[in-house]
Amino acid sequence: MKDKKKLAIVLVSGGLDSCVTAALADQEYELAFLHVNYGQRTATRELKAFEDIAKHYNVKRRLLADSSYLKTIGGSSLVDVTIPIEKSNISTIHIPSTYVPFRNTHLIAIATSWAETIKAQAIFIGAVEQDGSGYPDCRQKYFQIFEQLIEEGTRPETHISLITPIIELRKSAIIRKALELNAPLHLTWSCYQESREACGLCESCLLRLRGFNEAGVEDPITYCKR
Amino acid sequence: MKDKKKLAIVLVSGGLDSCVTAALADQEYELAFLHVNYGQRTATRELKAFEDIAKHYNVKRRLLADSSYLKTIGGSSLVDVTIPIEKSNISTIHIPSTYVPFRNTHLIAIATSWAETIKAQAIFIGAVEQDGSGYPDCRQKYFQIFEQLIEEGTRPETHISLITPIIELRKSAIIRKALELNAPLHLTWSCYQESREACGLCESCLLRLRGFNEAGVEDPITYCKR
Repeated sequence: MKDKKKLAIVLVSGGLDSCVTAALADQEYELAFLHVNYGQRTATRELKAFEDIAKHYNVKRRLLADSSYLKTIGGSSLVDVTIPIEKSNISTIHIPSTYVPFRNTHLIAIATSWAETIKAQAIFIGAVEQDGSGYPDCRQKYFQIFEQLIEEGTRPETHISLITPIIELRKSAIIRKALELNAPLHLTWSCYQESREACGLCESCLLRLRGFNEAGVEDPITYCKR
Repeated sequence: MKDKKKLAIVLVSGGLDSCVTAALADQEYELAFLHVNYGQRTATRELKAFEDIAKHYNVKRRLLADSSYLKTIGGSSLVDVTIPIEKSNISTIHIPSTYVPFRNTHLIAIATSWAETIKAQAIFIGAVEQDGSGYPDCRQKYFQIFEQLIEEGTRPETHISLITPIIELRKSAIIRKALELNAPLHLTWSCYQESREACGLCESCLLRLRGFNEAGVEDPITYCKR
């Protein structure tokens, strides 16, 4: 049951996972949406997806934060256009070139500073461990330690739960959850490469397409290279 | 003994504590300096102090990062000019209005992303617990948890030590350490309020002046309101 007295910040990139996470948070909390531009290749397209999803859930409290120093730091194909993005490698176990060093820490730090200021009780993030991209900052243990860090590094009266509601789900289960909750998947954007139609070839598109395939439903967005 | 193969990132605000921390790091490591503008009142003056200290130590690798979304978030008199900065309250135990929610997490996150990219083995931060400002993100336990977070949230081959060399020192001991190491204290800036001559009245000035007084030496910088 939704309790208007409980406020949650949802990290909304504009992708499928964050959209489902917003749908889950919406069941219990008043929502505030945070979107971070860290100089990623498809920033403008992701921002549109963020705005569309925020509008869908009628979210008034929105924060756009710019941490594009991550682009200056580099070290990832996601923010450095001189590093090529590999095509489909989702079957191998390694850390892909799209890994932005320690990125989630920046996102959750911003969410925490905002949560402490507006007195939100929870932060939702749509990280996926098992069926995800293999990023080290998407693992359950990482988030457990981060929750301790929040408890230790904020005012004594501040208590914020860091909630990762889909971390254990496979992509197909996430998609089924989305359909169950009527999450607006047609508004989401997952592609790392393109900005008009999704490429269908990068690891993010491949993970998404595999999920829809396993769930036995059609992806509502359009792909250009298939 | 300085080992040119060991690289450390030092968080240099431009204040006295970060200057001494740089002097300590300089004894063992090749240095890289990070300065973060988070929309603090005296940002321009602090940046000048940063540049002066970097020049003094002949540091070529410098990163300036802008996380001024912290000003947008607000909640602190340090970034919000509508919240007054209290005068001297260093004898009372409370969290002052200058506390920027969870600020150090942003600073160390930037340092970690940079460290992982340029393969630095250590991050130095001049936080002070006992004789500091009472900020929750300046406590030893906070940094211990952060070091675990770095270990868990970065690539398996990345190992970064988070070093807080002055965390247990009183301000007077920090000043004595600075004199011992010939740290350029005349180049540092601590005041929260003014940008030409230090105010001598804000908590940061008071802590600094009390330290010099206890150490029995003269502060080399000029104060306007004394």
